[in-house]
Amino acid sequence: MTTETAGPKTTEHDHRYVHGYSEREALRLGDQADTLARLLHADTAYPAGSRVLEAGCGVGAQTVHLLAGSPGVLLTAADLSADSLAQARARVAAEAPGAQVSWHHGDLHELPFPDGSFDHVFVCFVLEHLAAPVAALAALRRVLRPGGTITVIEGDHGSALFHPESPAAHRVIGHLVRLQAGAGGDALIGRRLHPLLTAAGFAEPVVRPRTVYADAGRPGLAEGFTRRTFVAMVEAVRADALAAGLATAEEFDRGVADLRRTAGPGGTFHYTFFKAVAVNP
Amino acid sequence: MTTETAGPKTTEHDHRYVHGYSEREALRLGDQADTLARLLHADTAYPAGSRVLEAGCGVGAQTVHLLAGSPGVLLTAADLSADSLAQARARVAAEAPGAQVSWHHGDLHELPFPDGSFDHVFVCFVLEHLAAPVAALAALRRVLRPGGTITVIEGDHGSALFHPESPAAHRVIGHLVRLQAGAGGDALIGRRLHPLLTAAGFAEPVVRPRTVYADAGRPGLAEGFTRRTFVAMVEAVRADALAAGLATAEEFDRGVADLRRTAGPGGTFHYTFFKAVAVNP
Repeated sequence: MTTETAGPKTTEHDHRYVHGYSEREALRLGDQADTLARLLHADTAYPAGSRVLEAGCGVGAQTVHLLAGSPGVLLTAADLSADSLAQARARVAAEAPGAQVSWHHGDLHELPFPDGSFDHVFVCFVLEHLAAPVAALAALRRVLRPGGTITVIEGDHGSALFHPESPAAHRVIGHLVRLQAGAGGDALIGRRLHPLLTAAGFAEPVVRPRTVYADAGRPGLAEGFTRRTFVAMVEAVRADALAAGLATAEEFDRGVADLRRTAGPGGTFHYTFFKAVAVNP
Repeated sequence: MTTETAGPKTTEHDHRYVHGYSEREALRLGDQADTLARLLHADTAYPAGSRVLEAGCGVGAQTVHLLAGSPGVLLTAADLSADSLAQARARVAAEAPGAQVSWHHGDLHELPFPDGSFDHVFVCFVLEHLAAPVAALAALRRVLRPGGTITVIEGDHGSALFHPESPAAHRVIGHLVRLQAGAGGDALIGRRLHPLLTAAGFAEPVVRPRTVYADAGRPGLAEGFTRRTFVAMVEAVRADALAAGLATAEEFDRGVADLRRTAGPGGTFHYTFFKAVAVNP
């Protein structure tokens, strides 16, 4: 129950770009989760009765998929934001009404649970916001029983690849990466899951990339992922990027327009998520 | 039977960087094919008796996998280089001795076969070298029967993503991209397969990315793909990059050293190939 966030410190002043705090962001994350659910979650299924911790559940966008894939688990969902937790609770009540979920408001670095309290830990789109991801993973390992697994899912903005090619589009993605780094996070963290898990004392990490690829033959994905997820995420930092002097409004808007074109006729867009599973030895 | 290559013109002077022309390159391509065979080829299986054209078979690195996955096809393997064809022939004789293969020495833009001669066309790591890939695809469509399929596999160097991050490493990859562009090719072509096939008149193109990902948990892939395939390919352009003034020897070697480190302890490397299947309407 601390006021420390699981991401960068969320003062009124500097938390604006962090995912999941506005209504529009909540909608965006919900869209993303629905579009990506199968890609990211299809191979996660914990046995009924398992004690599972979702660390950093946010607004519950992933929680409902976790519960759908693992009916009967005893889930503890933790987040630093009381507002996010309330949204997650409402979402789970609506979409997974029979689920057994304990909601915990607090910092994942300082969870009040005894050692080995959980059979499995699940962390999705959280490490990217942390200044010290290895310390966070070590704190999660403490509450995981020996032999239990941790599953980590993160994106990596360096994987964004598109046609038509556009330096302006790459620059706006770079602004997002820089703002997230300035807030203590790392939008390029997907590629580091193996060394991070190893450094935190986990054994046998197995990392598998999950690629989203959209072209004219997949208009739903071009709209649902390229535009409504990825481009929307970039657009969400517009004010911060301008305030930080990273781009003029014209430059920023040109980059976003070029990114949008990759979801149009003749365009393609490619992005890779990384999913890792490791064991607490 | 022309002297025009399926890639950039191969005069004595400017063909040095083109894949597949030296013994070392032939070895490298063989390694790559073995490591990647399942990833790239497992879902290609033509019925026995099908008339299949492999356009640009090179030294036969992919030909043997094509034959292994589709026993009993009637294969025509074409390449512009007589030397490469001879190597391909020897490789097939050794690895697929019962295969029925017609070897054709000539330009894929001007194949002497009647319209609709083939049930399937297969093109792997060829379009990246062509100045006019749409024209080449249209020429291949001519010899494909209506309802027949074309399968195209290409890489995209823009997908190279690694840890530790290194601007010097990205720069040497950029030199390779620039040299290939200077020779009329496109090392970033993977992302364009859908619009290229559409422009050439093919219907229903379905493109699926195939990601190679290597980390400390996959030492064979780190060695076989990251070092012996990707880094070796970059190293092969060293002399040309220096001659073109793109880098000093020190800069180039630092970039290569940084790339090699991504296959070492704590390193990761990610690369995406694109595989497309489309129909001749």
